[in-house]
Amino acid sequence: MKPNHHYQDVAETYLFSNIAKKVNAYLAENPEKSVLRLGIGDVTLPLAPAVIQAMHEAVDEMGKKETFKGYGPEQGYAFLRESIQAYYARRGVSLSTDEIFVSDGAKSDCGNILDLFATENSVLVPDPVYPVYVDTNVMAGRKISYMQATKENGFLPMPDPAVKADIIYLCSPNNPTGASYTKEQLKGWVDFALENNAVILYDAAYECFVTDGACRSIFEVDGARKCAIELCSFSKTAGFTGTRCGYTVVPEELVFDGMSLRKMWLRRQTTKFNGVSYIVQKGAAAVFSEAGEKQIQENLAYYRENAKLIATCMDECGIAYTGGKNSPYIWLQCPTGMTSWEFFDYLLKEIQVVGTPGSGFGKNGEGFFRLTAFGSRETTMEACRRIKALLKK
Amino acid sequence: MKPNHHYQDVAETYLFSNIAKKVNAYLAENPEKSVLRLGIGDVTLPLAPAVIQAMHEAVDEMGKKETFKGYGPEQGYAFLRESIQAYYARRGVSLSTDEIFVSDGAKSDCGNILDLFATENSVLVPDPVYPVYVDTNVMAGRKISYMQATKENGFLPMPDPAVKADIIYLCSPNNPTGASYTKEQLKGWVDFALENNAVILYDAAYECFVTDGACRSIFEVDGARKCAIELCSFSKTAGFTGTRCGYTVVPEELVFDGMSLRKMWLRRQTTKFNGVSYIVQKGAAAVFSEAGEKQIQENLAYYRENAKLIATCMDECGIAYTGGKNSPYIWLQCPTGMTSWEFFDYLLKEIQVVGTPGSGFGKNGEGFFRLTAFGSRETTMEACRRIKALLKK
Repeated sequence: MKPNHHYQDVAETYLFSNIAKKVNAYLAENPEKSVLRLGIGDVTLPLAPAVIQAMHEAVDEMGKKETFKGYGPEQGYAFLRESIQAYYARRGVSLSTDEIFVSDGAKSDCGNILDLFATENSVLVPDPVYPVYVDTNVMAGRKISYMQATKENGFLPMPDPAVKADIIYLCSPNNPTGASYTKEQLKGWVDFALENNAVILYDAAYECFVTDGACRSIFEVDGARKCAIELCSFSKTAGFTGTRCGYTVVPEELVFDGMSLRKMWLRRQTTKFNGVSYIVQKGAAAVFSEAGEKQIQENLAYYRENAKLIATCMDECGIAYTGGKNSPYIWLQCPTGMTSWEFFDYLLKEIQVVGTPGSGFGKNGEGFFRLTAFGSRETTMEACRRIKALLKK
Repeated sequence: MKPNHHYQDVAETYLFSNIAKKVNAYLAENPEKSVLRLGIGDVTLPLAPAVIQAMHEAVDEMGKKETFKGYGPEQGYAFLRESIQAYYARRGVSLSTDEIFVSDGAKSDCGNILDLFATENSVLVPDPVYPVYVDTNVMAGRKISYMQATKENGFLPMPDPAVKADIIYLCSPNNPTGASYTKEQLKGWVDFALENNAVILYDAAYECFVTDGACRSIFEVDGARKCAIELCSFSKTAGFTGTRCGYTVVPEELVFDGMSLRKMWLRRQTTKFNGVSYIVQKGAAAVFSEAGEKQIQENLAYYRENAKLIATCMDECGIAYTGGKNSPYIWLQCPTGMTSWEFFDYLLKEIQVVGTPGSGFGKNGEGFFRLTAFGSRETTMEACRRIKALLKK
C-alpha cells in the first residue's frame, strides 16, 4: 500500500504548543505571577439556558422507546434546516432547505468539501490565514498561491487579474485579522470568480459579530449563488466549540462541467457522514428560538464589550490595529518594530499577558499580534490595564 | 474549477427508496393491512439509563461557567479513550490510548480514512458488501476488485493468491450476511496482507453480537498490528445510531514507506475534524460503566433473542441462512429459486413482511434476502408466525 505522500508536505505547526511551552517555562521560574490569557480562539461563556433546556429534553426523548431517535437525515433534521433558512431570510437571503447541510462543524466541512474538487485545481488563500485552508489542500496535493493581506490594503486583499485560481478562500470577518469585507468589496470577488469560472469558499464563522453593515453572508451579493459555498458554525455564535454543530450552504446554481455541487455534496455527506447527534441538533435549533436568540445576543454583547475594551486600549496606546468591531479578534501591529515573537516574550515577561504571534498565521503576520475577546471581563480589563501601564506614551 | 469527475462513476442506489415505494404502493391499495418491517438496520430500543444520566450531567456542565467545555482534543477525551482501552484489555487486546481515535461514527471514519492512501492503490472488497466501501473508493477514483462471498464458502471468502490488492476490506460479523470469521480464518488474511504489503480495513461495527468465540477484534490475531486498522462504533453496541459516536484503532506498527499511519490519521483528524460533542462522549463513556454494561447487555440480549426467533423460524421452514447467531442479521436463501425482488414482492403481498433484497448488496446477493433482529419482540414474533404459515412445508 502506498500512503498519501502529500502528508509529508504539510508543515508542522508548533504555534500553540510553542506558546504553551513558553508560558509554562515562565511560570516555572515565576510561580507567583498571574498570567492573563487572551490568545485563545475558544469561547468561555456557558451555553444559553434555552439550548441547555432543549438538549435536556432531547436526552429524555432518547431514553424512551416512544420518542427514541435512530439514524436521522445525513444533511440534518428539517426542523434545524428550516430554522437556519429563517435565520438567513431575516437578513434578506433566500435559501432552499435543500441547499443547507448541517454538520459537526465548519472545520470538518472546510476539509471535507475539497472532496468535490479535482486535484489539479489551483487554490488562492489570503496570507495571513486560518491554517486549515492551506493544510487541507496540501494534503490533497493542490498548488496554492497567496493573496497578500497587509496593513496597506486593510488586510482585505482584492482580486489581482494576474493571479487566477480555481478555488478562492475568503474569510470575513477574518481570522486572524478581524477585518471584514463590505458588500461592494465582495461583489468584486464574486465578479472575479464568475469571470474565471472559480468557486469561492466563504468562511462566515464569525458573521454574528458584524455590527456595522459589513456582509454577513456572501449570498447578499448578486451572482454569489453561481460561484460561492458558505461555511458557517454555531461555535462562535452560540458557544458550540465543544458541542459541535455547523452548516454549509451549497446553492442549486453551482454547476461546473454539468455537475451540481449541491448534489455532489449531498452524495458525499450521505456516503461519508451519518448526520449530527439529534441532541446537538435540538440544542442548535434552540439558538433560533425567541428565548435562545435573546440569550445568545447577551453573550455576544459580552464578548463585543471585551473587544471594545481592547480596541479602546489600543487607541489609547496609539497602536494600529484591525478588528475589534465586527470581530472578537484584535490584530495589532507590534510596537517599536518588534517581531511577533519578540512582542510575545515582552508582554509575557513584563506584564504576563499572553496573545498569539501573528507570524504563526503566515509571512504577512510577522510584526503583528492577535488578542481575543473571548476571555472573562475581569481578565480583559486587567490585561488592558497592564498593557496601558506598559505601552501608553 | 474542475469538479471531481469520479463522482459521476458512483452508482445511484435506489435500494431503500425502492423498498419504500413498493411498501407505500401496497399500503395505498391495501390500507387495512399491517406491514411488519424487518428490513431496517437501525436500532429501536432507547438509550440505556446510565447513558441518559451521563448525558444529562454533561448538559448541565455545559450550562455552567465553571464546568463549561470548549474545544476538546480532536482524537477524543482521555476518559473515553481510556474506557475503550479497558474494553479491549478485558478481551485480551492491549492498545495504547494514542492508537484510539474517537469520532462521530464508523461511517465517517470508513470514508475519511481513505485520505491516508494514495489514489493509485487497488482495493479488494467482498461481494455482497456494505455499499460505503465501494462508493467511497469510486469517489476517489480507485480501482476495485471483488472477492466472492457465496453460499459455498459460507459467505467468508479467503485470500486468493491470484487476486492481490493494496487495501482489503473485511467486515465481521458481516453486514449483510451475518457470517463471522474465526481467528484462524483472519490469520489467513493477516498473513496475506503482510506478504503483499497490504492494509486491512477491518469493520468491527457488529463485534458486540459475537457469542460463539468468533473474532471480535482483528488485533486478537498475531501480526494484525502491522497491517490492520479497526473501525468500531457505539451504534449497534449501545443504540447510538442517532447519538453518533464511533472509534478507530490505528496501531503504532502501521508504517508504510516510512510513514506512520497513526501519525497521519492524527494529522488528518486534527486538521479536518474538531472532535465529538463532549455530551456524546460522556454518554459513550457511560456505556463502559458497571451499570451501563449491564443495561447494554440486556438490550443486546433482547436483539439476540429476536435473531434466534428468526433463525429458528428459518430452521423450521427448511430455509438455508447465515447469521442470526453472532449477528443481528439473518441472510437467507430465497425459497423455490425466487430472485431477491421476487421474494420481496411475495412476502409483502402474501404476509406483509418487509425485508431487504440481497441483490441490493452486490451480484452475489441475488437470490438472497436480509432480515434484521432490530424490530420489537412483538413484530418479530408475528413476522415469524406469518413466515411459518406461508413457507413451512
